[in-house]
Amino acid sequence: MLEYLTDADDPRLSDYTRLRDVELRKSIEAERGLFLAEGEKVIRRAIGAGFPIRSVLTTRRWLASLEDVLGDATVYVVSDEIMSGIAGFQVHRGALASMERLPLPAVDTLLKGATRLLVLEDLVDHSNVGAIFRSAAALGVDGVVLSPRCADPLYRRAVKVSMGAVFSIPYARMDDWFEGLARLRDAGFQTLALTPDQTVTPLDRVPPADRVALLLGAEGDGLSSHWLAEADLAVCIPMSAAAMATGVDSLNVVAAAAIACHGLMRTAAG
Amino acid sequence: MLEYLTDADDPRLSDYTRLRDVELRKSIEAERGLFLAEGEKVIRRAIGAGFPIRSVLTTRRWLASLEDVLGDATVYVVSDEIMSGIAGFQVHRGALASMERLPLPAVDTLLKGATRLLVLEDLVDHSNVGAIFRSAAALGVDGVVLSPRCADPLYRRAVKVSMGAVFSIPYARMDDWFEGLARLRDAGFQTLALTPDQTVTPLDRVPPADRVALLLGAEGDGLSSHWLAEADLAVCIPMSAAAMATGVDSLNVVAAAAIACHGLMRTAAG
Ligand SMILES: C[S@@+](CC[C@H](N)C(=O)[O-])C[C@H]1O[C@@H](n2cnc3c(N)ncnc32)[C@H](O)[C@@H]1O
Ligand SMILES: C[S@@+](CC[C@H](N)C(=O)[O-])C[C@H]1O[C@@H](n2cnc3c(N)ncnc32)[C@H](O)[C@@H]1O
Repeated sequence: MLEYLTDADDPRLSDYTRLRDVELRKSIEAERGLFLAEGEKVIRRAIGAGFPIRSVLTTRRWLASLEDVLGDATVYVVSDEIMSGIAGFQVHRGALASMERLPLPAVDTLLKGATRLLVLEDLVDHSNVGAIFRSAAALGVDGVVLSPRCADPLYRRAVKVSMGAVFSIPYARMDDWFEGLARLRDAGFQTLALTPDQTVTPLDRVPPADRVALLLGAEGDGLSSHWLAEADLAVCIPMSAAAMATGVDSLNVVAAAAIACHGLMRTAAG
Repeated sequence: MLEYLTDADDPRLSDYTRLRDVELRKSIEAERGLFLAEGEKVIRRAIGAGFPIRSVLTTRRWLASLEDVLGDATVYVVSDEIMSGIAGFQVHRGALASMERLPLPAVDTLLKGATRLLVLEDLVDHSNVGAIFRSAAALGVDGVVLSPRCADPLYRRAVKVSMGAVFSIPYARMDDWFEGLARLRDAGFQTLALTPDQTVTPLDRVPPADRVALLLGAEGDGLSSHWLAEADLAVCIPMSAAAMATGVDSLNVVAAAAIACHGLMRTAAG
């Protein structure tokens, strides 16, 4: 159903407005159970993954590119000016969709079907979370477990950077950070704590295991000492001593995750 | 030498002003042969790497944190308001330094001393270039060769994302894209074209070589067909067939570079 809107303040646009105010948006999205998908490809993937469409916002120029998948969804068509005013920037990819969230699986449910997991501790950067989902999907990880304070994978920037991988790879959120790893161990996962500490077991020496969970920490702090102590094994990716002397003393978590997932695909039995 | 400035339009601040206008800044920086380093750590690394300081811009609060390395450099001290007005955002790390560029080595000079190189073709995204330099430094790459249209590693965002690795890892810029790979081969490098194409040689099957150059392409286009054809060997990182079916058909170039550098460290003889 097409609706041509000419007023940027139209209340029907409220899912999309105030996109610039990150804090406000987070609470609006969580409260209403929605998220925003940006661009034709990402919108198609979200629809393909079964997320219900609340509405789509686009301009006349981009309408045709999505028509085949929109069914009877409500489509608000606006001018280029209103579009870029609302999106807060030039929307190159021509469309935004407001989608309904689906309930997340419980951690235990996710663990049942999986053999290779990533576990992200308090990664607050949406780009990093999105990029890690993209690598995880491409490299055959079965699922991602998020600590309670980890950034939301359905936040717009994370969705975009992930290329839509947040729709295809199942994830769950721990409700208990302190006991979180115990649950993974109970389910038979070997928990490997990834750390730049060069004195621990190098990645390539990790013995193969049927079920592997890789733990990754955030840019500034790394993994908490609690998780490092709880994990079955601390694992490092070897780094150049010369670089460490000039202050490059860790990899970015996206790079570390990619290397570790690549290694994990080969060592995990599943 | 400290100078307390109270006027945001003071001409002495011109290295720093108009930071928001990307295009303008690029031309100003290139023309004046300067670049901007942001934050205490990055400024220290730039000074440590031998780049001459033109001036430093900071606030009273942050002055002490850098005093020991500034020598007799000109330091402009401004209010928090002027600082954030000029930087275009809240400068968490408290200082910006305007530094002089040093002449880049010629490609041939870079090739002489190196055994493991990255070659970036037309990566225009500054964050990607910065992140690749960080991984390259951490993973023991000797140098980076940039195609003529590749983004500037000394652009502020690239410097920041690299954690200053752009100062420690030598790089050079090709002046001839078409003949670029021939020069690498003449110098005895095996050129490996990294491509998501899953029909080519997988990374782990690449035979070891004394001198290896890994070629990486940009997000949208990947490597040019010219470079793919010119390279000694096309190499892929294996990806999950299931993910490819849902549209995740390549890794982000930062992730691909990290995995390939990690592999390269082990296969290269050097
Ligand atoms: C930027 S690092 C954190 C640095 C932090 N200062 C520390 O010491 O942990 C972010 C995350 O990436 C992963 N990581 C980074 N470099 C690594 C390496 N060389 N080996 C294994 N994991 C690494 C770890 O999971 C780490 O928590
Ligand atoms: C996002 S990809 C480019 C995708 C582009 N559509 C293509 O087909 O090349 C950016 C770069 O990352 C590298 N890359 C990405 N995935 C890769 C993989 N699975 N194996 C090897 N290199 C990969 C390649 O160098 C590529 O040029």
